[in-house]
Amino acid sequence: MSTFFYVTTMLSTTPRTTLGRAKHRALTGREDLYAVLDAGLVCHLGVMVDGWPMVVPTGYGRIGDTLYLHGSTGATSLRNADQVCVTVTHVDGVVLARSAFSHSLNYRSAMVYGHARRVEDPEEHLAGLRAITEQLAPGQWDATRKPTGKELAATAVLALSLAEASVKVRQGPPNDDEEDYALPIWAGVLPLHQVWGAPEPDPAMTAELPVPAHIAARAMPAR
Amino acid sequence: MSTFFYVTTMLSTTPRTTLGRAKHRALTGREDLYAVLDAGLVCHLGVMVDGWPMVVPTGYGRIGDTLYLHGSTGATSLRNADQVCVTVTHVDGVVLARSAFSHSLNYRSAMVYGHARRVEDPEEHLAGLRAITEQLAPGQWDATRKPTGKELAATAVLALSLAEASVKVRQGPPNDDEEDYALPIWAGVLPLHQVWGAPEPDPAMTAELPVPAHIAARAMPAR
Repeated sequence: MSTFFYVTTMLSTTPRTTLGRAKHRALTGREDLYAVLDAGLVCHLGVMVDGWPMVVPTGYGRIGDTLYLHGSTGATSLRNADQVCVTVTHVDGVVLARSAFSHSLNYRSAMVYGHARRVEDPEEHLAGLRAITEQLAPGQWDATRKPTGKELAATAVLALSLAEASVKVRQGPPNDDEEDYALPIWAGVLPLHQVWGAPEPDPAMTAELPVPAHIAARAMPAR
Repeated sequence: MSTFFYVTTMLSTTPRTTLGRAKHRALTGREDLYAVLDAGLVCHLGVMVDGWPMVVPTGYGRIGDTLYLHGSTGATSLRNADQVCVTVTHVDGVVLARSAFSHSLNYRSAMVYGHARRVEDPEEHLAGLRAITEQLAPGQWDATRKPTGKELAATAVLALSLAEASVKVRQGPPNDDEEDYALPIWAGVLPLHQVWGAPEPDPAMTAELPVPAHIAARAMPAR
């Protein structure tokens, strides 16, 4: 039989984070949540606008058990962020089964529910922006020009507690029906990797500058 | 000055698909929408559950101007899919600017709003499942065991019109403030690619079968 597995990590006990489906294994460690969040570049932020769901891809950062989001002070998604669901998904491969029905994806996914709080404290505002920038581009906060007062005023930062969250992970080969294993059909996984390419210098650079070590180092290994 | 650009494709004229921000260029071709959707493996489906947004990663397929989604007949997301927003996002790179404020992502993203219709017609039900399987794994529908009546009955298929949609694309180098271009700070783009790995045969295969050509061919080039 196949050695595929799901891991569902329930970090809270509300019905919507207590996964009822495909619950092959349950953990409660917050490290699973941190690992999925910290490996991502964008989340999908779900809000309600005029009674309709709206799903927006956006950057984020994490400090401890708080997720930070940002955007223009006028952005529709941020003005409607009282009740939110934030989802981060990594696709690790396509699961090729013997039956069409058993096709699947290998993935890691985290869902966070909560009331997003508009950050007013200047220190937390700056810390949130730093976390968001560093999530996107580690090392860049210290290497680049810091935000001006005008830039800070134009940027809203939201804070979302990680108290209500769940993680779902599927890894491994297909899980076909018992009788399908005898079929002469190739089955397995086609893995999918995210790989950084070589840094592309901005043609508008006014001087010949070397690629900084923290950027070059990131481009070297596969993510 | 930099040659970065946003493309915002508005395929409908409802306020929520008429992009008000970063509207550097607007197109109306449906090909932009098809290109973003057809290149994806998962969408993020936004629904409302008990008055709260819920964002779920899930597979999908497209036939003409209809998007198909599927899931267990009991899935919470599908039982609440009257009003949905479906978003597909590709991250193409991190935009490393001279100022922290101007950091960004290069990406392609599509948003579709609509009422998801539960597919009842057996022919459309099967066509939808075929489209979803082929989106995940081209060529696999014909190469694998087709769904049984029991499997079909356990799987709900939803149809979503692509009538109300928007596409947003950012590509190119950073867009720094005029006065920042003179700063001695490296700027550019760190590209991100999705690359298929070598197919991993299921250890539970009962015979030594070669990797089918349609799978091997997909693993060869970078996506």
